[in-house]
Amino acid sequence: MAVNPPLLDPPLPVPCFRVGTASCGVKSPEIRGKRQDLTLIVSDEPAHAAGVFTQNRFRAACVDFGQETIERHGQDIRCIIANSGNANAGVGEMERLWAQQLIEAGAAACGCRPEQTLSASTGVIGTPFPIERIERHIGEAVASLRPDGWQAAAEAIRTTDTFAKWASRKVGNHTITGIAKGSGMIHPNMATMLAFVATDAPLTHDQLQPMLRRAADRSFNSISVDGDTSTNDTVYLLANGLGMGHAPLQDTSEFEQALTEVCIELAQLIVRDGEGVSKFVTIHVNGARSEEEARKIGRTIAVSPLVKTAFAGSDANWGRILAAIGNAGVEIDRSRVALAADDVCIVENGQLREDYRDEAGMAVFAKKEFTLHVDLGLGEAAATVWTGDLTHEYITINAEYRT
Amino acid sequence: MAVNPPLLDPPLPVPCFRVGTASCGVKSPEIRGKRQDLTLIVSDEPAHAAGVFTQNRFRAACVDFGQETIERHGQDIRCIIANSGNANAGVGEMERLWAQQLIEAGAAACGCRPEQTLSASTGVIGTPFPIERIERHIGEAVASLRPDGWQAAAEAIRTTDTFAKWASRKVGNHTITGIAKGSGMIHPNMATMLAFVATDAPLTHDQLQPMLRRAADRSFNSISVDGDTSTNDTVYLLANGLGMGHAPLQDTSEFEQALTEVCIELAQLIVRDGEGVSKFVTIHVNGARSEEEARKIGRTIAVSPLVKTAFAGSDANWGRILAAIGNAGVEIDRSRVALAADDVCIVENGQLREDYRDEAGMAVFAKKEFTLHVDLGLGEAAATVWTGDLTHEYITINAEYRT
Repeated sequence: MAVNPPLLDPPLPVPCFRVGTASCGVKSPEIRGKRQDLTLIVSDEPAHAAGVFTQNRFRAACVDFGQETIERHGQDIRCIIANSGNANAGVGEMERLWAQQLIEAGAAACGCRPEQTLSASTGVIGTPFPIERIERHIGEAVASLRPDGWQAAAEAIRTTDTFAKWASRKVGNHTITGIAKGSGMIHPNMATMLAFVATDAPLTHDQLQPMLRRAADRSFNSISVDGDTSTNDTVYLLANGLGMGHAPLQDTSEFEQALTEVCIELAQLIVRDGEGVSKFVTIHVNGARSEEEARKIGRTIAVSPLVKTAFAGSDANWGRILAAIGNAGVEIDRSRVALAADDVCIVENGQLREDYRDEAGMAVFAKKEFTLHVDLGLGEAAATVWTGDLTHEYITINAEYRT
Repeated sequence: MAVNPPLLDPPLPVPCFRVGTASCGVKSPEIRGKRQDLTLIVSDEPAHAAGVFTQNRFRAACVDFGQETIERHGQDIRCIIANSGNANAGVGEMERLWAQQLIEAGAAACGCRPEQTLSASTGVIGTPFPIERIERHIGEAVASLRPDGWQAAAEAIRTTDTFAKWASRKVGNHTITGIAKGSGMIHPNMATMLAFVATDAPLTHDQLQPMLRRAADRSFNSISVDGDTSTNDTVYLLANGLGMGHAPLQDTSEFEQALTEVCIELAQLIVRDGEGVSKFVTIHVNGARSEEEARKIGRTIAVSPLVKTAFAGSDANWGRILAAIGNAGVEIDRSRVALAADDVCIVENGQLREDYRDEAGMAVFAKKEFTLHVDLGLGEAAATVWTGDLTHEYITINAEYRT
């Protein structure tokens, strides 16, 4: 059950990037040949790179390695190797070794060095990582490397996703294409939000890293299906335009805008594919003192089980939304708070509007998609958060035995 | 559906306290005479008082007044007036006036001044407060004042609670009795955890306030059904021993221990009565650097929808529990973390024990009550948190239309 998954135009190839996939049977040898589960993204020129990683303290070794590699060698990255089917997490002492072997396999396949190679793994945790099956079949991915391999890669990184996710933008003469996986989080033991974004824009690691941080805050960090974050969440951004000899981009604002749009589009697709989600709700918070405070309030509304069950029940339960706003740990002046659902004003100056009619609110909450507008009346900052509802299907999916 | 609600011994009367109830038809005039919904707790001698209040920024006026009164007049409190059926919250400009009128009604009925009177309201929000029905029938509560009225009061403060909650302890020659309401939180629009504790121990406001703060942290702030807190949550503690002429208590540690036990007992009853809860899970975190960090980790596990659905599904999903530990925002050393369920050791040194068998973990998670033991291996501090599971019934209760 996905909420209005859009029919996506094919992803745009990005100059000097080639993408290939293989079927290794990562999850089990029987699925080899039945679905692709290994992805290589290769830049034919050295790329500058940036990364954003899970804050979970139990994060997997591949995340540690990715962050280290970007910090030390972020000016010279050549490839990403990513597998689905096994997260290589929670497996004990072998985890770092297997993560290192995956990086080495990717480097060998792409003809570069391990320190030029980023990796990501997603899938079941606590199960030994079948590095030998990946080593055995990685040649397929090399053989399939091609400029328009992005859609196949978006398919190959899926775990419980019900559809493949990608987005592209043109910015001037340059292209940005990203792919992502994640269905909120989490099928039993299938965690992880991954996104890989590539561009031929000429930007340095030092320019990219803060831009990706901001774009991720406004996209992947502004969605919530259930408020949990996984051990393997990773976003990588590669830009190879400088390696191609383009002159450095002076004004980066247009690029950042396009990058943010790509990330938001990917993030929204993840919410639409959220587990058990039957509604897609946009929460726009403005009038805040800072974007961070606005986002904090939006996220508190977005993760409240009481608010999310009210969404599921098509119940315009504004009291729960006010209570969530009050719970965010942000100083507010309740006498200034306003709340609307689409074009129905519900609360003004912290109290129910006299002309509000419950039927009007209920009609909005009954829709498959709607927007909550929260105005704190304190400043000029704003943030937008996207979320789904909390349904019986979520419980069914997540309370089932692992299989 | 409550989890093993214990058969409680009757609450002990507390010297020089009298308790009465009335049926006012607060929620609607039709229920007048059918259930009690107003409670008076009167100390015949001046009592020292302490209070702990919701941190929700949308808290109700009665909470503001309660905190003010305790700060200014906490050495001379004579009564608590509490109603169920209407929270007097989210009702706009009249809220403060109605809250003031409730206090005045309580003061007049008990023959004391408004500044000696604490109040609490719980029930639907956003509905005009029927102060006139309370004023009309409060005489019933005065007429019924008696030393052994605690059980009737525990019944009268209920909203969606499926059973009445109380606890008593003797400490030396003195008595502590508390009553509470709350079913985790929340039936549609029926929020609020309330607890009122009375003792004849001779303690000052300055002694009581920090003790109640600590006891509340270890009890009411250590439970979670869904992670939301309400606009009206309030805990009051009255001690009238000094007013009775007893010599001040020098060593308060024994009293604090008993007070904490009463609060924990009440808090556990609230979890057992949690909405849609089918399991009662104790989470004991030790080896932390501070009690606060231990509690933060316990609470993060306790509110994780993925962990709670795993409880519901009797799934010993240790990966989700580790991920929740990693999500708590507490610095940990993952290579030191240990996890056990009852007597089954699952994780040691941050990794799955080789001798762990999933069937053994599953057998524990299938029980109606069990304990998770988390050891961080970093220090000597510990905390315990109690929680329930996240079930289809919770969704059904909270996704229903308001009626």
